[in-house]
Amino acid sequence: MSLSDPVLANDVLAQLFTEARTHVQWQDRAVSDEQLQALYELAKWGPTSMNCFPMRLKFIKSPAAKARLVPLLAEGNQAKTEAAPVTIIVASDHAFHERLPVLFPAAPAARDMFAGDQALRDATAFRNSSLQAAYLIMAVRALGLDAGPMSGFDAQKVDQEFFAGTECRTNLLINVGYGVAEKLYPRGPRPGFDEVAEIL
Amino acid sequence: MSLSDPVLANDVLAQLFTEARTHVQWQDRAVSDEQLQALYELAKWGPTSMNCFPMRLKFIKSPAAKARLVPLLAEGNQAKTEAAPVTIIVASDHAFHERLPVLFPAAPAARDMFAGDQALRDATAFRNSSLQAAYLIMAVRALGLDAGPMSGFDAQKVDQEFFAGTECRTNLLINVGYGVAEKLYPRGPRPGFDEVAEIL
Repeated sequence: MSLSDPVLANDVLAQLFTEARTHVQWQDRAVSDEQLQALYELAKWGPTSMNCFPMRLKFIKSPAAKARLVPLLAEGNQAKTEAAPVTIIVASDHAFHERLPVLFPAAPAARDMFAGDQALRDATAFRNSSLQAAYLIMAVRALGLDAGPMSGFDAQKVDQEFFAGTECRTNLLINVGYGVAEKLYPRGPRPGFDEVAEIL
Repeated sequence: MSLSDPVLANDVLAQLFTEARTHVQWQDRAVSDEQLQALYELAKWGPTSMNCFPMRLKFIKSPAAKARLVPLLAEGNQAKTEAAPVTIIVASDHAFHERLPVLFPAAPAARDMFAGDQALRDATAFRNSSLQAAYLIMAVRALGLDAGPMSGFDAQKVDQEFFAGTECRTNLLINVGYGVAEKLYPRGPRPGFDEVAEIL
């Protein structure tokens, strides 16, 4: 790619980065299962370490599933999640190494390395499912939808409710739909380059 | 945005997701300081929890800085990092809460909440700097550059060398430049939707 890849146009950069916002109020407009599958088909290509791919997803869409999730959220997150067409539960599978022989056959010893080192496995699962959550957020925007990521919820209860009997641990939630731009708060400031970065 | 936001064109989706690759060999073609600043100016807009923004960056570009970093990497990562025009050290500042009064004035109690809960602070720093690393990777691609993220290095030594006297901990590294497409390995497989996701 690269040599032939252009800098993306300003309207594309606006949609993905410079004008994109975290939404908290949602239009009454559905998101289809086909859109959710398209979302996965984009986000899955984002890179993870040794292609370990620890992200596991529950797309909470039906009223019955919403009713299981909403009471487990921080109070400030309940109304907006109730109103969102879809809420994605992004979890980390801490048994991700069992799939490495298929996902990363180039390193046959990788499965056993992770099997024998719980701390490394936990850090790898958490880091890489977080990377994958960000790819999801960017893919939501790339598909013309809006995202509202959240980390205020009772993680243990969400794990019990949606991932019992597995080694999956809920990492964060992402509301998805078509936001109401008029209801946005003012945008938070970001640090200047020199406050957090340095060229050496 | 949303209602007026289109699904991005296929060539854009290819550059960001479907055809983008992790590069391991690099053309002898420089990346300017202006490109690195443009990269930050895009990635900084990706959302973090309570706008906590724990990401701290060192852009390793000069031969002197490269010579400090390369010996601290896993052997398999040394040659490609030596050859990359720039290597970004992405760290998590575990004292990120000190900036919350400026970054998230809507919640005046947030600084003290994090100050009193080290486990919450550590998880928040790690999760959100990982999200921000993924925004960086997507921004690299949006600017027509290639990325090569890595997690094989001696994190304690990198911390000592580049972040002594701070609460910053190195999370991952990203080589940046113009990749050599002919030198790519075959692409790793990804799980099918039904293997890792469910619509409820």
